[in-house]
Amino acid sequence: MNCNVPTDIVFSFTGFATRGGGTDHHADGWGIAFFEGAGVRHFVDYQAAIESPIADLIRRVPIKSKNVIAHIRKATQGRVALENCHPFVRELWGRYFVFAHNGDLKNFMPELDSPYQPVGTTDSERAFCYILQQLRRRFGDAPPLLNDLTAAIQKLTSEIAGYGTFNMMLSDGSALFAHCSTSLHYIVRQYPFSEAVLSDQDMKVDFSEVTTANDRVAVIVTEPLTTNETWTPFTVGELKVFIDGQPVT
Amino acid sequence: MNCNVPTDIVFSFTGFATRGGGTDHHADGWGIAFFEGAGVRHFVDYQAAIESPIADLIRRVPIKSKNVIAHIRKATQGRVALENCHPFVRELWGRYFVFAHNGDLKNFMPELDSPYQPVGTTDSERAFCYILQQLRRRFGDAPPLLNDLTAAIQKLTSEIAGYGTFNMMLSDGSALFAHCSTSLHYIVRQYPFSEAVLSDQDMKVDFSEVTTANDRVAVIVTEPLTTNETWTPFTVGELKVFIDGQPVT
Repeated sequence: MNCNVPTDIVFSFTGFATRGGGTDHHADGWGIAFFEGAGVRHFVDYQAAIESPIADLIRRVPIKSKNVIAHIRKATQGRVALENCHPFVRELWGRYFVFAHNGDLKNFMPELDSPYQPVGTTDSERAFCYILQQLRRRFGDAPPLLNDLTAAIQKLTSEIAGYGTFNMMLSDGSALFAHCSTSLHYIVRQYPFSEAVLSDQDMKVDFSEVTTANDRVAVIVTEPLTTNETWTPFTVGELKVFIDGQPVT
Repeated sequence: MNCNVPTDIVFSFTGFATRGGGTDHHADGWGIAFFEGAGVRHFVDYQAAIESPIADLIRRVPIKSKNVIAHIRKATQGRVALENCHPFVRELWGRYFVFAHNGDLKNFMPELDSPYQPVGTTDSERAFCYILQQLRRRFGDAPPLLNDLTAAIQKLTSEIAGYGTFNMMLSDGSALFAHCSTSLHYIVRQYPFSEAVLSDQDMKVDFSEVTTANDRVAVIVTEPLTTNETWTPFTVGELKVFIDGQPVT
């Protein structure tokens, strides 16, 4: 989720978390990270989201954020363990970066000889460490302008997608980068807001009652979360950058 | 807390968190990190611990861990914000390191030209980044033996303590390093276990009912948490290393 004002994710997370062992088979852990200013609240669990007391907290307590990345895991590489749960968090250029991956990379064993080393054993964390290593090599100690950063991330995600399925999201708290390898959809909710009905739970919300006319929220997912809204599919290989609740070019 | 078997911290945290705006004035945020295998559960909040719904979760849901670092904040440097809440987490040598600091460093502005850059604006995070930078410079890409790591941390903590008060805890999930600059106490609880009574709340626990004869738990704090146990003070300038629930030499 990427927004122009801090927004809570209770509605979307409720549907999404149901897929973690409820309406879907992604039951090998879950996680969510909320940027709040420069800081990050990071919650991970190797229990299925539907059974996790921490997921229950996220469903009950609205945490407001402009950039949120959530993930429910179906283990492909790496055992079911806390260190293998997405999203992963690392620091680069004095900013936290948050990363989550949907997919499976085959034989992706890049040379990792920088300070970014995987703690767990997933292909995903290897890919994240590789991205950070290459960004730091390319741009040095200081962050580049957004255009240059986007071009570099586009190149890296295309390269990594050559090894398998690589739908991914990455955020530094100011922008959210989403790369589609096989399936990714997004929606921008803005004025005039209307009602949305979850696919995975008997729950709906009338966003016009909980928003102001200036709010704008982009939600990016592998599979649409609601039944009565129009989600826009990404094209294969596409990288989109979201800022302030909308895709930028 | 450092233990030989995964142990929950509900009892100690209940007393400790009361100091975050209740029995003490450390009301500018709080945080706690639990190692679980190689992974870390990290919770931070800029609300006072006594009012935080996330602190309430920690008091209610037992999370078992062999190494836990918790902190309640009284802001000295750096505003009240999520990115300034301890403990801080970074990765070095493919391990997460967790760090918390009690104290205040004056004019501690080390040259930080490594990949470890502060995200927030505290003296504490600067000190943590400096420690990781110097450890990586000293030992390169691979972790040293414990004795060498301990000697390096002793040297660094002594150096940093030259700038002010530097009570600190650092863990890589296998050992817990605690440095006393002005005040630190510890206790080792082991068989035969007995009852403990909190200083800060009307609460007691009979550890003999919730432990086995093989359990051993070290708790290290700035000020003792219980009224009926004997806590051992650190000497000024002392670094102790705790493994499997006891100090090692």
